[in-house]
Amino acid sequence: MNLWFTELYENDSGFAVKIKETLFSGKSEYQKLDILQTEQLGKMMVLDGLVMLTEANEFSYHEMIAHVPLIAHPNPERVLVIGGGDGGTAREVLKHEIVKECVMVEIDELVVEKSKEFFPEIASAFDNPKLNLIIDDGFKYIEDNKNAFDVIIIDSTDPIGPAEPLFSSRFYKNVNECLKTDGIMSAQSESPYLYKKIIKLMYANIKSAFPIVKMYTGFVPFYPTGMWSFAFGSKKYTYQEKPRIEDIDKLENLNYFNRKIYYSAFDLPNFAKDLVK
Amino acid sequence: MNLWFTELYENDSGFAVKIKETLFSGKSEYQKLDILQTEQLGKMMVLDGLVMLTEANEFSYHEMIAHVPLIAHPNPERVLVIGGGDGGTAREVLKHEIVKECVMVEIDELVVEKSKEFFPEIASAFDNPKLNLIIDDGFKYIEDNKNAFDVIIIDSTDPIGPAEPLFSSRFYKNVNECLKTDGIMSAQSESPYLYKKIIKLMYANIKSAFPIVKMYTGFVPFYPTGMWSFAFGSKKYTYQEKPRIEDIDKLENLNYFNRKIYYSAFDLPNFAKDLVK
Repeated sequence: MNLWFTELYENDSGFAVKIKETLFSGKSEYQKLDILQTEQLGKMMVLDGLVMLTEANEFSYHEMIAHVPLIAHPNPERVLVIGGGDGGTAREVLKHEIVKECVMVEIDELVVEKSKEFFPEIASAFDNPKLNLIIDDGFKYIEDNKNAFDVIIIDSTDPIGPAEPLFSSRFYKNVNECLKTDGIMSAQSESPYLYKKIIKLMYANIKSAFPIVKMYTGFVPFYPTGMWSFAFGSKKYTYQEKPRIEDIDKLENLNYFNRKIYYSAFDLPNFAKDLVK
Repeated sequence: MNLWFTELYENDSGFAVKIKETLFSGKSEYQKLDILQTEQLGKMMVLDGLVMLTEANEFSYHEMIAHVPLIAHPNPERVLVIGGGDGGTAREVLKHEIVKECVMVEIDELVVEKSKEFFPEIASAFDNPKLNLIIDDGFKYIEDNKNAFDVIIIDSTDPIGPAEPLFSSRFYKNVNECLKTDGIMSAQSESPYLYKKIIKLMYANIKSAFPIVKMYTGFVPFYPTGMWSFAFGSKKYTYQEKPRIEDIDKLENLNYFNRKIYYSAFDLPNFAKDLVK
């Protein structure tokens, strides 16, 4: 059988990948989840028709969303991950010995369950005693907790569907209050080549809540255009001010992130700089 | 009509884009050329089934292949472009006032003709009196000219088809001899996520011909994986040694390249560093 999965970008272009077999296909209260065995990229997780990760390349996204805020903070002992039900972001967070507790609030238990079953390497964090997994609404959790975390990582799906409230200015104000006085957040912020309107609005919202806001980027193949951006929001420290740069050398199994990438990820091409100025 | 163009990556994944109409479809002595009007990305040029450029995003590739070697060289008066028949690389080269002559050797006259007809903005360099267009075999031209250029840019197609000899060690030795004693070359060098074997071989070949060899990268959407690499080969100067960094501010209409990108493009993710060490 010649079976292909296709993800469309604004209906007019897209990514296609050849599929060996469907490993799981189901629907939770929140979204549709498919796990597919590809020919080229290992297993692939798809939520509501959009590629979330492939085994071959998940490292770039997870390393970049997690390590940048954690290195920028001088003492990130308590970390909160919103979303990220596959476990990849938490896996990267827990590579930092300095982290005492990583709380992860995922709305959809099915994603966690199936990640444990089909992506044990990515889901390895769920066995870590420092991980506190809470199945709940991230928006509500952040609203209910004040002055509680050093770093918050928003590892959400796109701003259409269950993650929509996670792109609002009210949400970012709550993130600010959920952080301690010198806290830092990171959030996935889409592709600057394609989603210019969403990005402009998202960064305006973050700027309404944080005094220090920057975009940084990484190569994430098989996300739309392969250029992915992340928002860095900070209450006190710039990314250059107090980075634990030497601690990068203690992080194991880094396929992407290193000392130079930490800094250069913030150097934006002109068209991306224009979006967030 | 619901018409889609698809480019496959090693047969198991690919890029698809919706087509309004085919503007030109023809075959030269060397390759098949198609020019398509897309819904999303403007006009698109396709050679032997592979996307060469889209109007929406051609800037990133052309700026990165041209400006990096030209900024690294203290006095790039004579520049040679091999390939690049669409004219985009020459357009970027000729933004540098210091350039006295840009020789462009393209094997396929059909590409030049059709680029003038369908991509006048990209082909604008062909009207520039500093451009010397030669329709000939780039391999032969380089073999026949010694000690003649400050910068050589290899803007070739992939190493399958007419461009194959442009990836051999003999070719890079000839490039070295075609350069003056302090000359610099750049060459497109494929995606580090997908073409690991080709890249290892290509960089080994360049290292056999040049004492200073580096990889740099840029976000090139709708080339495979969106991460594109370029080889930097130099006879004398490192990229940090004599860059005309202030001259970047004199370059007009840069959508991608800037002072910080010049340096940070050389900061590679770990998996890419491993390929070229």
